[in-house]
Order: sequence, then C-alpha cells, then structure tokens
Amino acid sequence: MSPDQEAIRDVVAAFEDSWNRHDMETFAELFTEDADFVNVVGLWWKGRPEIKQAHETSHATMFKNSNLSISETSIRFLRPDVAVVRSVWELVGHTSPQGETLSPRKGILTNVVTEEGGRWAIVASQNTDIMPLG
Amino acid sequence: MSPDQEAIRDVVAAFEDSWNRHDMETFAELFTEDADFVNVVGLWWKGRPEIKQAHETSHATMFKNSNLSISETSIRFLRPDVAVVRSVWELVGHTSPQGETLSPRKGILTNVVTEEGGRWAIVASQNTDIMPLG
Repeated sequence: MSPDQEAIRDVVAAFEDSWNRHDMETFAELFTEDADFVNVVGLWWKGRPEIKQAHETSHATMFKNSNLSISETSIRFLRPDVAVVRSVWELVGHTSPQGETLSPRKGILTNVVTEEGGRWAIVASQNTDIMPLG
Repeated sequence: MSPDQEAIRDVVAAFEDSWNRHDMETFAELFTEDADFVNVVGLWWKGRPEIKQAHETSHATMFKNSNLSISETSIRFLRPDVAVVRSVWELVGHTSPQGETLSPRKGILTNVVTEEGGRWAIVASQNTDIMPLG
C-alpha cells in the first residue's frame, strides 16, 4: 500500500472510530472547512460547521449508542492528490425518536478526498442506505 | 461562465436530455469506461456497461415515461480538470411494478467529473432521494 493509500485509509478509519466514540470534534476535523455532505435522506450540509452541528445533534439522539462498521473500502485515484473513496458500512444500535433500537442498516458512503500540504481530507461526502430488495 | 463550466453544464444537460428521451446509448457515453454509480437504493454499478444495462432495464419499465428536471446545479472544481457536480432534480411520471404512476420524487445527484483530452466525462455518480421530513 502506498503512503497516500495508507493516509486515506487512516481518514476512513478515523471516520469510523470518531463516530463510534461519538467524538464530533475529531469527526469534523476530517473534513475541509468548505466540505459538503449529502446524507441518506438528502439533507445537504454545506461547510464543516454544518456537518459538525448535524452530527452533534444526531449523536446526542438517534446515533447516541450506534456503532458503525466499515467492512470494505475502495480507493480510486483520479489524480495523485484526488481520490474517490467508497466504503460499505453497517450500522447497529441506532434508535427511533421514541428510543427503541432499530434494525441494523447497511449503506455505501462515498468520500471525495484531496491532499493539501501533505494532509488528506474529505471535501465532499454522500451516503446512501442499501435498501433490501423486495 | 468559463469554457470548462460550460462543458460540465453540457454533461448535466445531456444527462437530463438523454434520460427524458430514454436514449441510454447517449446516456452511457457521458460516463468513462471505468465509471461507477451508486443509485438511490444503494445498488452499485461498476463500469459503463453495467451503468448502461441497469438504465436500459429501468427505462424499459419504471422510468419508461418518466421525466427528469434538474433545477439547480453547483460545480466545485477540486483541480482544473476535476470537479464535484451536485444537481437537485425532480422526477415525474415513473411507475410502480404494477404500472401505476407514482408521486413525484426529488433528489440530489452527485457526479464527479474529470477532463481527459479536452472532454469532460463522469467518473463517479451517486444519487439520493430527498425524503420528506415526517
């Protein structure tokens, strides 16, 4: 694995780890100041402060005891310093607004990452639930 | 508008136009050979042939009479030849497996585009329905 691939895998690992510790300070630091994020229901957060605020809110409520496991990450370099990173995840322990634990969810998280001054960070994210086929 | 911005807007316009003419030949040509696409329910198509096949199937069935309107597109250049393009869309006229026309849907389509040899094309897509907040 190249140092860049390793650095990108570290970003994904830190996404998972900070999610599971519900440490939104560390989580937010993975994004550039002007990053944006489209979540699974089409909410579109623009800028790191909005991304942080939204996750602080969800991790105080529905995601408070949730655990995210990323099972598979594929990295595609578009340029030496730009990559599209797709991660397949499973989430357990999230709750309804009434506080009941919901069924596990699976999805695909896409992070577009760039390297600036030796540091890889997320500039654009989009997350999609994998729906059970009916 | 710069020539690159114009060329990228042309790709998005051609996405909408080929969708509405259900011309999946033209649609598929907007993607690079090795592009991938995560759709609204987390299906992940890898390579242009899979993207084409999936859209041929859906445009012969549920999307046969559908009409896609892109109301708003924002382009963010990560490098002079790499951009993240987010488009807000509305879809009407799509049908259930039983053939009944369903309610309009809205969503956010993200296309990561690159320029190679003077031509902009889609290398990675992800699409998310905007869910009505309950």
